[in-house]
Amino acid sequence: MTTFNTIEWVGGLDGYARLIDQTLLPNEFRLLDVHDVETMWEAIKTLRVRGAPAIGIAAAMGMVLATRNVQTEDSAEFRAAVDRAAQYLNSARPTAVNLFWATQRMQRLVASMEGAPVQAVKQRMLDEAIAILEEDAAVCRAIGEYGAQLIEDGQGWLTHCNAGALATARWGTATAAFYVAMEQGKRFHVYADETRPLLQGARLTTWELQRAGVPVTLITDNMAATVMAQGRVQGVIVGADRVTANGDFANKIGTLGVAILAKEFGIPFYVAVPRSTIDLSLPDGSGIPIEERKPEEVTEGFGKRTAPAGVDVYNPAFDVTPHRYVTAFVTECGIVRPPFAEGLRRLFSAQADK
Amino acid sequence: MTTFNTIEWVGGLDGYARLIDQTLLPNEFRLLDVHDVETMWEAIKTLRVRGAPAIGIAAAMGMVLATRNVQTEDSAEFRAAVDRAAQYLNSARPTAVNLFWATQRMQRLVASMEGAPVQAVKQRMLDEAIAILEEDAAVCRAIGEYGAQLIEDGQGWLTHCNAGALATARWGTATAAFYVAMEQGKRFHVYADETRPLLQGARLTTWELQRAGVPVTLITDNMAATVMAQGRVQGVIVGADRVTANGDFANKIGTLGVAILAKEFGIPFYVAVPRSTIDLSLPDGSGIPIEERKPEEVTEGFGKRTAPAGVDVYNPAFDVTPHRYVTAFVTECGIVRPPFAEGLRRLFSAQADK
Repeated sequence: MTTFNTIEWVGGLDGYARLIDQTLLPNEFRLLDVHDVETMWEAIKTLRVRGAPAIGIAAAMGMVLATRNVQTEDSAEFRAAVDRAAQYLNSARPTAVNLFWATQRMQRLVASMEGAPVQAVKQRMLDEAIAILEEDAAVCRAIGEYGAQLIEDGQGWLTHCNAGALATARWGTATAAFYVAMEQGKRFHVYADETRPLLQGARLTTWELQRAGVPVTLITDNMAATVMAQGRVQGVIVGADRVTANGDFANKIGTLGVAILAKEFGIPFYVAVPRSTIDLSLPDGSGIPIEERKPEEVTEGFGKRTAPAGVDVYNPAFDVTPHRYVTAFVTECGIVRPPFAEGLRRLFSAQADK
Repeated sequence: MTTFNTIEWVGGLDGYARLIDQTLLPNEFRLLDVHDVETMWEAIKTLRVRGAPAIGIAAAMGMVLATRNVQTEDSAEFRAAVDRAAQYLNSARPTAVNLFWATQRMQRLVASMEGAPVQAVKQRMLDEAIAILEEDAAVCRAIGEYGAQLIEDGQGWLTHCNAGALATARWGTATAAFYVAMEQGKRFHVYADETRPLLQGARLTTWELQRAGVPVTLITDNMAATVMAQGRVQGVIVGADRVTANGDFANKIGTLGVAILAKEFGIPFYVAVPRSTIDLSLPDGSGIPIEERKPEEVTEGFGKRTAPAGVDVYNPAFDVTPHRYVTAFVTECGIVRPPFAEGLRRLFSAQADK
């Protein structure tokens, strides 16, 4: 149902990565063909590709681009090149956990093939990068299958930020439910918060839903209460950056407000996440650090200054929503309802993995 | 404590109106001297002067500018000129109730002086325009005196939109509490919602509070829940466009959401309004029409398009907050607590007028 690939690999080992240049959205749809690791580094650095899963895929493909032309038959020498490539790519966005995860996965693969012909290792690296992409698409698809069960004909749904196809290999997490429900022929309407300060909802979520033919209406963040009060919304679904053991979760700033409003209006509030986002080592949300970003995102986010010079600005990038506001988590292994401590733990038991 | 006059009259009957050109804020502070009615019409039309009370004052001064040079000693002829001036000024913003109220008040004055020398009528018109300004300043000051009683040392307060000095003759309504509390030497901190889509909080509220030395921090609307969750806010105070008999009220979009959040966090929520905003003829908020404004305010509000072409947008300018979320109304006649139906009615009894 999505009509684009956020990122893909074209051809064989002598091929290239192709990704949507998201810095040009929503005004221009342009594909960027990436033939070398320097271009991939720049694409990650400047957010042409964004969203944790998509960054991981880009980094894995970057590892291929960096090493496929290394002229050596010596395993150790090749492995040194692989390690240098990982170090280089990791420097593009030093806070992106998925970036490190992906480059490490590629490094482990190479280490595990110690002694194998270098050409074979190179081919396996490409296979692994594509596997990372396919795994992510499959996880998102499964989240979408479960999420779509929650959507009924004639309903209105609200989402915040862009937990969308553009942040993943395909389908997205929160948006996956919409895409699968569309395929099933359900008729529903989505309200997208614009999501200040960086406007991911306005720029990206409306773009990808519109492109897929999902009926979507853009609102400013402070209109969510009114569309709920008017009875236009029967469900809320958002993504998450991190879910803790008790079900508290961090997500884009504004999520907490939407969750409280949903509770006040008796509207179910769902969080769509891959299991990889659930961190059982953190007991609750109090341990999640809140990143503060620069004031200019708020005061100069549109090219024109919107507040007086020297004004004090508080700009937290994320907020933490306590689990009591969450109706259920939608994961690739099923829908988890309260009590969350138990339900989330069970996701990682042998049974859930079957 | 405010360091500016939103609008004032300079000199005698041959003088002029002086107002802050609010279209240039927050980047430039420029005073506009208005010597003729055409310039005043343009200033009202293009929002150089804005806010219901300030528009009323501008219109009354516009009536003086339009008629002070009418060369006649004939009462009827002068009255006809006054009526033409009212009609002209009313056309500047056809939905601004205070505009009509002010021009009508000037027309009634002139009608009541039928037969008096025209020169005396002209002087009384100027006196009346200045009286409208002084009355508004006195009302705002009284609201501020009552509002300041609610503010305690060390507290954080949150406000939405600009119910500020820039919308009135002086002091504002919601902001009046801050200015008076500052005069009293109280130490407190204000969080100002930027107030999408038109950013009155970012552009105007931070500007006027900063200028007056009130410590203020700008946040985006969707950060309000987080600053409340972090314990930074002990009170919320906002203005209102219309209060109904049961205490339901209409105000800038986003107010309902803030009110619900305040209730969830146990933070008192106050509405600062002059009695003139209370409309006892409306039983409750269901009768208040919600004005929808053009999509471009949301998608092109910053000069640069922030959403894909053709995207559907819902852009209500106001929302209606049910009275159950209101802790109290702060008026020039005192603080009104529940039950509001009784308390608001009592404001208009003879006793309250003494």
